[in-house]
Amino acid sequence: MPRVCIVMGSKSDEDVVKKAVKVLNELNIDYEVRVASAHRTPEKVVDIATRSDADVFIAVAGLSAALPGVIAAHTLKPVIGVPVSGKLNLDSLLSIVQMPPGVPVAAVGLDRGENAALLAARIIALSDDSVKVALHDYMEKMKKKVESDDVAVRDAL
Amino acid sequence: MPRVCIVMGSKSDEDVVKKAVKVLNELNIDYEVRVASAHRTPEKVVDIATRSDADVFIAVAGLSAALPGVIAAHTLKPVIGVPVSGKLNLDSLLSIVQMPPGVPVAAVGLDRGENAALLAARIIALSDDSVKVALHDYMEKMKKKVESDDVAVRDAL
Amino acid sequence: MPRVCIVMGSKSDEDVVKKAVKVLNELNIDYEVRVASAHRTPEKVVDIATRSDADVFIAVAGLSAALPGVIAAHTLKPVIGVPVSGKLNLDSLLSIVQMPPGVPVAAVGLDRGENAALLAARIIALSDDSVKVALHDYMEKMKKKVESDDVAVRDAL
Amino acid sequence: MPRVCIVMGSKSDEDVVKKAVKVLNELNIDYEVRVASAHRTPEKVVDIATRSDADVFIAVAGLSAALPGVIAAHTLKPVIGVPVSGKLNLDSLLSIVQMPPGVPVAAVGLDRGENAALLAARIIALSDDSVKVALHDYMEKMKKKVESDDVAVRDAL
Amino acid sequence: MPRVCIVMGSKSDEDVVKKAVKVLNELNIDYEVRVASAHRTPEKVVDIATRSDADVFIAVAGLSAALPGVIAAHTLKPVIGVPVSGKLNLDSLLSIVQMPPGVPVAAVGLDRGENAALLAARIIALSDDSVKVALHDYMEKMKKKVESDDVAVRDAL
Amino acid sequence: MPRVCIVMGSKSDEDVVKKAVKVLNELNIDYEVRVASAHRTPEKVVDIATRSDADVFIAVAGLSAALPGVIAAHTLKPVIGVPVSGKLNLDSLLSIVQMPPGVPVAAVGLDRGENAALLAARIIALSDDSVKVALHDYMEKMKKKVESDDVAVRDAL
Amino acid sequence: MPRVCIVMGSKSDEDVVKKAVKVLNELNIDYEVRVASAHRTPEKVVDIATRSDADVFIAVAGLSAALPGVIAAHTLKPVIGVPVSGKLNLDSLLSIVQMPPGVPVAAVGLDRGENAALLAARIIALSDDSVKVALHDYMEKMKKKVESDDVAVRDAL
Amino acid sequence: MPRVCIVMGSKSDEDVVKKAVKVLNELNIDYEVRVASAHRTPEKVVDIATRSDADVFIAVAGLSAALPGVIAAHTLKPVIGVPVSGKLNLDSLLSIVQMPPGVPVAAVGLDRGENAALLAARIIALSDDSVKVALHDYMEKMKKKVESDDVAVRDAL
Repeated sequence: MPRVCIVMGSKSDEDVVKKAVKVLNELNIDYEVRVASAHRTPEKVVDIATRSDADVFIAVAGLSAALPGVIAAHTLKPVIGVPVSGKLNLDSLLSIVQMPPGVPVAAVGLDRGENAALLAARIIALSDDSVKVALHDYMEKMKKKVESDDVAVRDAL
Repeated sequence: MPRVCIVMGSKSDEDVVKKAVKVLNELNIDYEVRVASAHRTPEKVVDIATRSDADVFIAVAGLSAALPGVIAAHTLKPVIGVPVSGKLNLDSLLSIVQMPPGVPVAAVGLDRGENAALLAARIIALSDDSVKVALHDYMEKMKKKVESDDVAVRDAL
Repeated sequence: MPRVCIVMGSKSDEDVVKKAVKVLNELNIDYEVRVASAHRTPEKVVDIATRSDADVFIAVAGLSAALPGVIAAHTLKPVIGVPVSGKLNLDSLLSIVQMPPGVPVAAVGLDRGENAALLAARIIALSDDSVKVALHDYMEKMKKKVESDDVAVRDAL
Repeated sequence: MPRVCIVMGSKSDEDVVKKAVKVLNELNIDYEVRVASAHRTPEKVVDIATRSDADVFIAVAGLSAALPGVIAAHTLKPVIGVPVSGKLNLDSLLSIVQMPPGVPVAAVGLDRGENAALLAARIIALSDDSVKVALHDYMEKMKKKVESDDVAVRDAL
Repeated sequence: MPRVCIVMGSKSDEDVVKKAVKVLNELNIDYEVRVASAHRTPEKVVDIATRSDADVFIAVAGLSAALPGVIAAHTLKPVIGVPVSGKLNLDSLLSIVQMPPGVPVAAVGLDRGENAALLAARIIALSDDSVKVALHDYMEKMKKKVESDDVAVRDAL
Repeated sequence: MPRVCIVMGSKSDEDVVKKAVKVLNELNIDYEVRVASAHRTPEKVVDIATRSDADVFIAVAGLSAALPGVIAAHTLKPVIGVPVSGKLNLDSLLSIVQMPPGVPVAAVGLDRGENAALLAARIIALSDDSVKVALHDYMEKMKKKVESDDVAVRDAL
Repeated sequence: MPRVCIVMGSKSDEDVVKKAVKVLNELNIDYEVRVASAHRTPEKVVDIATRSDADVFIAVAGLSAALPGVIAAHTLKPVIGVPVSGKLNLDSLLSIVQMPPGVPVAAVGLDRGENAALLAARIIALSDDSVKVALHDYMEKMKKKVESDDVAVRDAL
Repeated sequence: MPRVCIVMGSKSDEDVVKKAVKVLNELNIDYEVRVASAHRTPEKVVDIATRSDADVFIAVAGLSAALPGVIAAHTLKPVIGVPVSGKLNLDSLLSIVQMPPGVPVAAVGLDRGENAALLAARIIALSDDSVKVALHDYMEKMKKKVESDDVAVRDAL
C-alpha cells in the first residue's frame, strides 16, 4: 500500500517526478505515480484525490498549476505542490503557493521533486520510526557530502 | 434565460463583478451571478459549469485563481477569466492567462470586469444583431466621452 | 469564407501561428493567415480588421504587442491575443492582457497558438454544431492521451 | 503538550500569527507561540527547533526570511513557512519557497497564517481522528459560507 | 504654433501631463494638449499624429500603453512616451519601452511628465538657442536647489 | 563631423552597437563610436559628453547601466539609452528608463540599437531634409518587407 | 573628523538617512551628511567622493540610483548603497546591487539606512575596538528585545 | 593567516568563487576557501563564522541564500554576500540583499565574485597600504583596458 501518491499534470513533468521517486526509494517509502490533469481530466484528478490510500499527495505541475489546489480541495490529507519551471517560472510557483484561505497546499521550490519527497517523509516519520531513521541517515550522508566537498575544494584552490 | 453566467470565487470579488453587471445591463444582455469556489466548493463549480444555459462564462477570482480554468475544463463554451488584484497581482493574472495547451481561457486585465462583459457581448453579437447594435452604441458613447474630454482639457490647460 | 482571421505582427511569429493553424485544420474550421504590423503597417492592420469576413480574430505578437488591441479598436468582433515569448516575456503578455476599459482583448498564454484556436472554436461552436462536435472529439482525444500516459508512466516507474 | 510550535521572526509578524492561532483554537489543537529571529537570536532558534515537543513547526517571517529554513535545518519534523508581506513581497516568498535540495520547507502564501494552521492540522489528522473530524467540520462550515454568499449575491444583484 | 504636441490616452492621465506642461511653460516652449485614445478613438490619434505642426510628440498612457507606438507609426517626428503608474506599473512601462525594431519611441520613467518635457526641450534646443539658454538656466536652478538642500540638511542633522 | 556619438559601456556591448551603426550607415548619417565606462573611466565619459560635436548621444550599457544618465548629466543634448540584455534584463532597462526628475534619458528597448539609431535620425531629420527623406525611404522599405512576408505566408500556409 | 560620509541623492531620501544617523549616534561614530545628486550635481559628487576624509561612504538613492556607483568610481574606499523605495522598488535595488565587474558597491536592503550604518560600523570596528564594543552592545540589546518580545507574546496569546 | 574567508553554500557555486580567488591572488591578499551550507551543515557554518581569523567574509550562495545572513548573525565582522544565478535569479538576490534591520550583509551583484573580492580589498585597504596600492594598480589596469578597447573599436567600425 503506497504511503505517497505522486500525481503529475503532464507526462512532460516526468523529470521532476523522478527526483521525488529516487528519494522515496532511498528512504524505502512506498508510493504510486499517476498522470492526471486538473484541466484535461478533472474527474480523474478527483477520483485519485478521493480514492488513493496514500497519506500524502505530491502534485507536480507547470504553467497555471491548478493540480495541487484541486487535489487539496478533494481531500483532507496534506498535499505538497511542486511547480515545474518553464518560460515564466513565476506562473507555476505563484499558482501553487498563493492558495486562498481555507485550502492549504505545501509548496516547495521550482522543480524540487526531491524536497517534496523529503517533506512527505518528514510527515510520515511523525508516526513511523523506520522512516525517521532513514531520514536521519539521509541527512547525515548529505552532511558528509558537504564535508568531503569542503576538503576537495580546499585541496584544489 | 441568461446569456452570460458570472461566477466569482469569493464574495470579496463583488466589486469587480459589479463592473461586468453594469455593462451587461447597459447592453441589455441577460445574465446570472453566482458565488462558487474552485477550492472550497469544487462540486458546485462543476455543477454550474455543466448546467448553466448561458452561452459565455465570466469567472472572477484572485490569488491562485483556478476558477476560470476549472470551469473551462467542464464546458465547451467560451470562458472569460478576470484576475482580481491583491498583494502580488501577478499571481491571479498568471494563474488565469497561463493555461496549459488544450483548455483555453480568455484572460482580460486585472479587475477588468467591464472588459469581460464587453468581450462576452462581442461573442454574443456574432449571432445577435440587437447586441451588436448595443455594442456599437456603447463604443460610440465611449468615443464621444474622449471627444468631450479633449475639448475640456484644451480649455483647461 | 474564413471563420477565423489569424494576423501575426511579424513573420518571426510564424511558429506560434502554426500551432493555431494545426488545431483549426484538425477541427475543420476555415481560416486565413496574414502578416501585418501595428507599428510598421498600421493602415494594413486597420484594413484587415475592418474588411475580413471572419467571425473571430487571432492576433499574434511579441514585445510591445499592440496588434491585438489595435484590431480590437477597429472591429466589434472578438479578438484573441497571443503573446509571443522573447527576452522579457512579461512585455508581450502584459501589453496584450492589460487592455484599458472599453476595448477587450481575450489573452491566452505565452506562445499558446493552439489555445487561441481552441478558444476561437468554442466561440464558433456556439452557433455551429459541427464545430461543437469536432471540439468535443478533440477534448476526448486529449483525455485519452492523458489516460495512456498514465498507464505508460505507471509501467515505467 | 503543544502539537504545533509557531515561531515568528519578529513581533511585527504578530497579525499573521494570530490567523494561525485562531484556526488552531477552532480545531482544538494545542500550540505554543515563540518569538525568535534567525538573524538576531540564532541560538534561540536552534534551541526551539531542537527542543520543542511539537509535531509540526510553523515559521512566520518577512524580508530575507531565513527562519523556516534554519528551523528545518535543525529538526526532522515538518516545517511550514509563512512569508510576511512587505515592500517587495517576492523577497519573503522566494526566500521561503526556494529552499535548496535536501532541506524541505512547506511554503504557504503571503500572510496565510490560517493556511499554515490548516496544513499543520492535515498533518496531525493523519494520526489523530479528533483533528480529522474538526478539520472536516471546518471545511463544511467554509462550504456553507460560500453557499450563503451565493444566495446573498443572487438576491442583491 | 506649438513646438510640442502632448497627447494623453485618458483624461485620468492629466496629473502626469501637468508636470510636462509646467516645465514647458517654464522653458517658454509652445505646446498643445490633446486627449485621444489608441484603443477608443484610433482615427483621432492618427489624425493628430499626421496633422499636428509640432516638432515633438509626448504621449502619456497607462496599462497596455499603445498610444506612443501608434503615434510613432504615423509620423517621422520623435515621439516621447510616458508610462502612467497603476496596479502593475510594469505594464505601461514595458508597453512603451519595448517597441519592435523599426519604430522607435523614447521612453521616460513612470509618471515622469517633467522629464518628457525636458527631453523635448533638448531636442528643440538643437535648433533653437533661446530654448538652449532656458534649459541651461533650468539645470542651474536645479543644481542650486541641491546646494541649498545640502546646506539645510547639514544644519539640521 | 559626426551627427551621432555612440558610446558603449563595455566592448562586450558591441553587437548592440553594430545594429545602430548599420542603420546610421543606411540613412547616411555620420557618427563616431566610443568605448567608455561610467564606473571604470568616469572622466573619459565626462570628456566625451562635454566635447563631442555630435547632436545626439546614444549610450549602450548593461547591468546597472549608469552610462546614459551620466552623459545626460553633462550635456544639454538629447541622450538615447539602450539597455543591454543579461541575466536579469530588468536591471539595465530600469536603470536607464527610471531617471530622476530633471535629467531625461530617452530609453529604447532591450538591445534595440537599431531603434536608437532611428530615434536619433528622427531628431536630426527635424532640421535636415536629406535625413528625413532617407528615414521615409527606410520606413517604406520596411512596409514592403511586411507586404512580401504577408504574400509569402499566405502562399505557404 | 568623520569616519562615515553619508550622501543622499535628494532631500526626499532624508527619512532613510535618519535611520543611519540614529545608529551611528548610538555607536558613537562620527559622520557627515551631504546632499548631492549623480545626475543633477555630478561634479559635487566627485568632489565629495575624492575629498572626504571618511573611511566609509553610505550613498542613499532612489529610482535609477547611480549615486553609490558613481562614488565608488571615484574612490578606493568601501561604498555602501541604500536603495530607496518608490513605485517600482526593483529600480533602485537593481541599479545599486547589479554593479559591473571592477567597481564594487555594498548593497543593503530597501530603505535599510540602519543596516548601512551597522555595516559601516563593522568595517570601522576592524581597526577600532571602541566601535567593536559598541557594536557588540548594540547586538546584545537587540537580542534582549527579541527575548522580551518572546515573553510578551507568550503572555498575550 | 587569511584576511578573507570565502564560504560557498555548495560545491556547485565554485565558478563564482574562482572569480573572487583570481582577484585576491592578483591583489596579493591571503584567503581561505570553505564549503559549508546554512541548511545542510548549519553547525559548520557557525563554527567557521566564529573561529575564522579572517577580517572579512565572502559568502556565495544560490536559491534561498541564507548563508551570508547566517554568517553575519554569528560574527561582528563585515560579511559580503554573492547571489548565484539560477532559474529565478531574484530568489538568491533578494534573499541576500533584503536582510532585516540589525544584521547587515553587503550584497554584490549576481555571480559577481570579482566584485566581492574587490569590496573585501577596499575594506582591508583602509588599514593596509600595500593592498591600497594593489587596488589602485588594478583599477588603472582596468582603465587602460577600456582605453585600448576604445581604440580597437574605433579602428574596427
